[in-house]
Amino acid sequence: MQDIQTFIKQPENSKLFQQTTIGIEREGHRVTPDGKLALTPHPPKIDGSTSSFFIQRDFAESQLELVTPPVQTSKEVMQWLQAIHEVAIRSAENEERIWPFSTPPQLPADDDISVAQLQDPNAIKYREYLISAYGKQLQMISGIHYNLGMNDEFLHKWYEYAQSEEDFKQFKSNFFLRLARNFLRYQWILVYLFGATPAAHETFYNQPDDKFDHPIRSIRNSHLGYINKADVTYSYTSLKDYAKKLAANVKEGRLIAEKEFYSNVRLRGGKNSKELLKNGIQYLEFRLFDIQPDATYGITAQDIEFFRYFILYLVWMDTDSDMDDVYLGNQMKTQVAEENPFEPSQYQSEGQQVLTDMESMLDAIHAPQVVFDALHVMQQRMQDSTLTPAARFYNQAKTDSQFVDLGTERAAENYAKAMEIPYALGGFTDMELSTQLLLFDAIQQGYEIDILDRDDQMIRVRYGNHDEIIKNSNITSRDSYSAFHVMTNKEVTKKLLAEAGYTVPRSTIFNQEATAKEQLEAFTHRPIVVKPKSTNMGIGITIFKEGADSEALRHAIELAFSKDDVILIEDYVFGTEYRFFVLDGVTKAVLKRDGAHVVGDGKQTIRDLVADKNKDKLRGEDHRSPLEKIALGKEEETTLEMQGYTFDSIVEAGKKVYLRDNSNISTGGDSIDVTASMHSSYKQIAEGMANTLEVAITGLDLIIDDMTEPATLTNYAAIEANFNPMMMMHIYPAQGESVRLTKELLDFLFPEKTVF
Amino acid sequence: MQDIQTFIKQPENSKLFQQTTIGIEREGHRVTPDGKLALTPHPPKIDGSTSSFFIQRDFAESQLELVTPPVQTSKEVMQWLQAIHEVAIRSAENEERIWPFSTPPQLPADDDISVAQLQDPNAIKYREYLISAYGKQLQMISGIHYNLGMNDEFLHKWYEYAQSEEDFKQFKSNFFLRLARNFLRYQWILVYLFGATPAAHETFYNQPDDKFDHPIRSIRNSHLGYINKADVTYSYTSLKDYAKKLAANVKEGRLIAEKEFYSNVRLRGGKNSKELLKNGIQYLEFRLFDIQPDATYGITAQDIEFFRYFILYLVWMDTDSDMDDVYLGNQMKTQVAEENPFEPSQYQSEGQQVLTDMESMLDAIHAPQVVFDALHVMQQRMQDSTLTPAARFYNQAKTDSQFVDLGTERAAENYAKAMEIPYALGGFTDMELSTQLLLFDAIQQGYEIDILDRDDQMIRVRYGNHDEIIKNSNITSRDSYSAFHVMTNKEVTKKLLAEAGYTVPRSTIFNQEATAKEQLEAFTHRPIVVKPKSTNMGIGITIFKEGADSEALRHAIELAFSKDDVILIEDYVFGTEYRFFVLDGVTKAVLKRDGAHVVGDGKQTIRDLVADKNKDKLRGEDHRSPLEKIALGKEEETTLEMQGYTFDSIVEAGKKVYLRDNSNISTGGDSIDVTASMHSSYKQIAEGMANTLEVAITGLDLIIDDMTEPATLTNYAAIEANFNPMMMMHIYPAQGESVRLTKELLDFLFPEKTVF
Repeated sequence: MQDIQTFIKQPENSKLFQQTTIGIEREGHRVTPDGKLALTPHPPKIDGSTSSFFIQRDFAESQLELVTPPVQTSKEVMQWLQAIHEVAIRSAENEERIWPFSTPPQLPADDDISVAQLQDPNAIKYREYLISAYGKQLQMISGIHYNLGMNDEFLHKWYEYAQSEEDFKQFKSNFFLRLARNFLRYQWILVYLFGATPAAHETFYNQPDDKFDHPIRSIRNSHLGYINKADVTYSYTSLKDYAKKLAANVKEGRLIAEKEFYSNVRLRGGKNSKELLKNGIQYLEFRLFDIQPDATYGITAQDIEFFRYFILYLVWMDTDSDMDDVYLGNQMKTQVAEENPFEPSQYQSEGQQVLTDMESMLDAIHAPQVVFDALHVMQQRMQDSTLTPAARFYNQAKTDSQFVDLGTERAAENYAKAMEIPYALGGFTDMELSTQLLLFDAIQQGYEIDILDRDDQMIRVRYGNHDEIIKNSNITSRDSYSAFHVMTNKEVTKKLLAEAGYTVPRSTIFNQEATAKEQLEAFTHRPIVVKPKSTNMGIGITIFKEGADSEALRHAIELAFSKDDVILIEDYVFGTEYRFFVLDGVTKAVLKRDGAHVVGDGKQTIRDLVADKNKDKLRGEDHRSPLEKIALGKEEETTLEMQGYTFDSIVEAGKKVYLRDNSNISTGGDSIDVTASMHSSYKQIAEGMANTLEVAITGLDLIIDDMTEPATLTNYAAIEANFNPMMMMHIYPAQGESVRLTKELLDFLFPEKTVF
Repeated sequence: MQDIQTFIKQPENSKLFQQTTIGIEREGHRVTPDGKLALTPHPPKIDGSTSSFFIQRDFAESQLELVTPPVQTSKEVMQWLQAIHEVAIRSAENEERIWPFSTPPQLPADDDISVAQLQDPNAIKYREYLISAYGKQLQMISGIHYNLGMNDEFLHKWYEYAQSEEDFKQFKSNFFLRLARNFLRYQWILVYLFGATPAAHETFYNQPDDKFDHPIRSIRNSHLGYINKADVTYSYTSLKDYAKKLAANVKEGRLIAEKEFYSNVRLRGGKNSKELLKNGIQYLEFRLFDIQPDATYGITAQDIEFFRYFILYLVWMDTDSDMDDVYLGNQMKTQVAEENPFEPSQYQSEGQQVLTDMESMLDAIHAPQVVFDALHVMQQRMQDSTLTPAARFYNQAKTDSQFVDLGTERAAENYAKAMEIPYALGGFTDMELSTQLLLFDAIQQGYEIDILDRDDQMIRVRYGNHDEIIKNSNITSRDSYSAFHVMTNKEVTKKLLAEAGYTVPRSTIFNQEATAKEQLEAFTHRPIVVKPKSTNMGIGITIFKEGADSEALRHAIELAFSKDDVILIEDYVFGTEYRFFVLDGVTKAVLKRDGAHVVGDGKQTIRDLVADKNKDKLRGEDHRSPLEKIALGKEEETTLEMQGYTFDSIVEAGKKVYLRDNSNISTGGDSIDVTASMHSSYKQIAEGMANTLEVAITGLDLIIDDMTEPATLTNYAAIEANFNPMMMMHIYPAQGESVRLTKELLDFLFPEKTVF
């Protein structure tokens, strides 16, 4: 066996060594606003099936388990924790929130505590067995599990370097087994550093005698915590032994199932030991963490980084713990858990030595500065026990009532934070709003998600074996690239729509600016639109509702040609413009846009009315919100002037005053949902247009004389078909019903997913 | 009935009036290089089924019928005629070509003339009946049919203006019936102006007595031509009458089928008169044209324009011919056809009057100048009969041997023109080369085609009711827009490929130029590639095969960042790069690219060797050909210098000398097809990659150590996946087998189309 430190020290290997994956599972009980355990069922808005990826239930019906995907950085872990937390909070009813501590809140009578009402009857039976074996209270403890995988290239390179005679799978399993043994030997250090359950509410204890007579470091790691009966046997010497012993425990009735084996490290690689044996160990799950009472999401980025490098140190260190070390380590863990947090640990000197050695490793592998910072914090804790979470928490919550008050208060703070910006998803606010909503819905609906490229707004959603890649919230595999090109080409779009019998404005196409200018007289003094052939966002378009003179038309032609090599001069159609959002052949939402305006009340100035309107949480700036604040700028001033107003005018009650001529949402306009009141004939037209263009997801702009009258050949015109249409304005309209298009989109992409 | 002239004179209506559709059908016999009727079957490369859209068979197996789609301009008609002609010529075997005259070439014995061997036994039976009724020779005459439709908006507006009490369908049919009657009344003018069959080869005549004793204007319109027996009745007074009489002729055995009714105008709108009655008349087919002996494609743009406006004049004119006029017109037609072309027509003064009146219309509707020019040519012909095609043609081909020689020569000229640039499609040379090939194949394979947008390289191909829109020759409905985005994002592409187990070079991604520069030392002195994240064409990429020093790497980073906000620094993989073209999960072609080079012969200078190599027809300039000519510029000079050569060096026999370091086709490189010799394991890898990326049409770049050895995890690397990959280099490689990917693409898009 070659020396692993020599290997890791090689710069390229150092880099790979530190590239572990991390995934966190955080448990926490739903509680009422006054800090009582929620007795309600799992929130019906959240997928409660066992396949739900991010939000699951643990032992109790009230016990949420928030699960992040495996990612590389602590920053990403925190983003996921925040996002999942927000989805859980916003999906719950009755303003329920999450209890912020590992020890449960004040518990109701045993009979009122319901085990998780999962569909699988075996899952319920298992939970009932746990109650009989360990008592309900113990199972109500919440914690944090930490999943860590090594970089596969690192393992391959180390395998080659080590010149092992084992096959790679075996080598990899043995690598993880050694790591697991070392972990079990030194786990007490983590119990010391992160223990945060010095006491529990009196309702937690089965017998008053159970209660410790002094604060401790971690109830969950104490003799009251998750410990199997003494007759349960185990081994970490080889994967085969591990699996054999585990199976024997179950077969011989010492465990009801393999998952009842409580160890602070779990070998992961299959559903059960048989599968694990076949696949080999893929990663390890570390299960000893208490929820950190101060951390909004139960753990901090610093904790995550420290822990990652602590584990890496267990790889790096010379020690190869044997089973005696493991037994010893498990004993030490319980001892340390039961120590008084205001006193140094009995094993302090070993702890100090380990942290010092860990620092040498950090130097040798050029670890980032944040890890050194984290280590120094932990070194101080090791030096001074009063700095540990257990001690600090106990100081704040010595009595049961202090504990309840503090938990209720923290839960309220965390709740308020999660509710702050209802249309955004914390952790992902750098992405487009509609992608944030899609992520929100995907988490809520139980899908698995990968962020393939944040900057590129590209995500992958998975259900079972079915993947869908989604870009910009509605570019999917269900629309073809040729359909995109057709819709980008206004002329072809119109040709196809006209062929199919839809009313489209007549238009003339020009390839040359000179030709357009020569012929411009033919287009003056009648209602027309001048636009570039291939742009999509209103750029370069000029509308002449009253017709144009030669000079104005000349300018419009020049503008359009500055945006494209080909332009159109098109009939302008009178009526109101509506946006139809069609998904999979069905009109899901119809919207009208109304320019920035206020309605007078006979008392307030326009300035005040605008300020009032801008208080709406949905209004923000720079497109980071569903609606835009109305500005009080030069253009608004001019628009008011034309109507004889200033910002300080008081407008009579009920009078509508526009501050902008255009109807864009981006300049403070209102989006008004009219899905219900739109005559069905126009919805059918929109659906037929989408069908003609062979597009699954599209926004169609129709100009309609009267939306309550049935469509004829002449009372409407199809003016535009948009690819990747906006969804926010339908989901958060200024007036009217919200249509949750992001959810509809997921239902469309995953028709096989059953409603839970 | 309102006055149609007043209506048409309104400027907007004038414009619509002139917007007719035009479609041409041009018949012509296949002949051998020495001018004999081809006795071979219909070219097997051409779809010979009755559904074949552009190339069909008429009466005889040798008689091609080239059919253009309905288009708006004579320019487009000519483009289609040229394209279809080229496809027909290049698809035929034994250097067969098309006989350039209406009267057939020297005919073999009757028994050697085969009727078209269509699949439908009734089609053959019908042709055999025609022989018995009219003789084989008559049916061997070829001509041109001209289909003309009116702008529908024009008809609608005229309908409203006319305040007709009929329904629109009836109104439209009556509009066309009046036009048909006027046409039949004045058709003699066209026979006079365009008659071009003054005589025929002696083998054409059944009986020597049939022969005229003087040249005439048009055999096809003479009593020897297509004329039904006298007992066949007909009426153009109403559509109902027309259909009734036609049906009666068939029922009572005067005609074997409705299509046996020979009229120089056919009412179109259905397969038979029953359907026609139901649909109403949609357009008219005019059938009296002789092939113009001088015109490469049988008719000229000027003829097409003249004819369009002549027909429009028949709408415009005050006359409303009745059935007596029609009978008279049919008589006059035959009389004029049999006139001596060197003498004025007996109806000259009527003809002159009509052309003069037509000129007034042209003035009134502001017709384009080209139409006036065409009219003036026709006025001169009317004035001076020796200027007519019949007279001019007779002067060139007075005797049978002159006729045969002239036809053989013309056919050879037209053949040479069609063969000139084998990789391009005449009429569409402004489009991308690969789109030209796709159009070629679609015509050959019998599909219908619309050019949706020439500039945008967007076409629509149809078979039956199945449409496919294709952009840039392989962007289709079968690839999703999300797959495009995935492949544009190199980082996501690699992530997905790595997940699926393919070997991809390791890479580091940088969002910030400063960060990349800070870390650049980690990448110096080892083989790397620096590239922008999201470009596709090699732009902004720097390759350091031998590793880079800091300075060079800094420059490469700056270059990459100048093309994208995000860049990659990637392992450079040694080996040879191959391009795999995968279609629908199957590797269709594999290509190697080799930089611009020559191979010495011990005699010629490099300059001469390059000149020699550049003679290849496939080599051109500015990407208008499959391969590029090798330049003799500064860069080539430098590359030679490094090897100790100048342009005037003589290189030893067999020695390969490169003039460029890169392998790009665009700088004179060779494309070398290696599809057959590539080890199948790499083809499977390419297919698996396409499957992973969920893309139907893609070009995958793999670097391979040795293409004859099976793939392992380490002897290849997947370096790029390309959307809309080039096809030309596979279809026209510099060495190796051609793979006709355009044809494969059509087969893929239309799996239901049976092989003919």
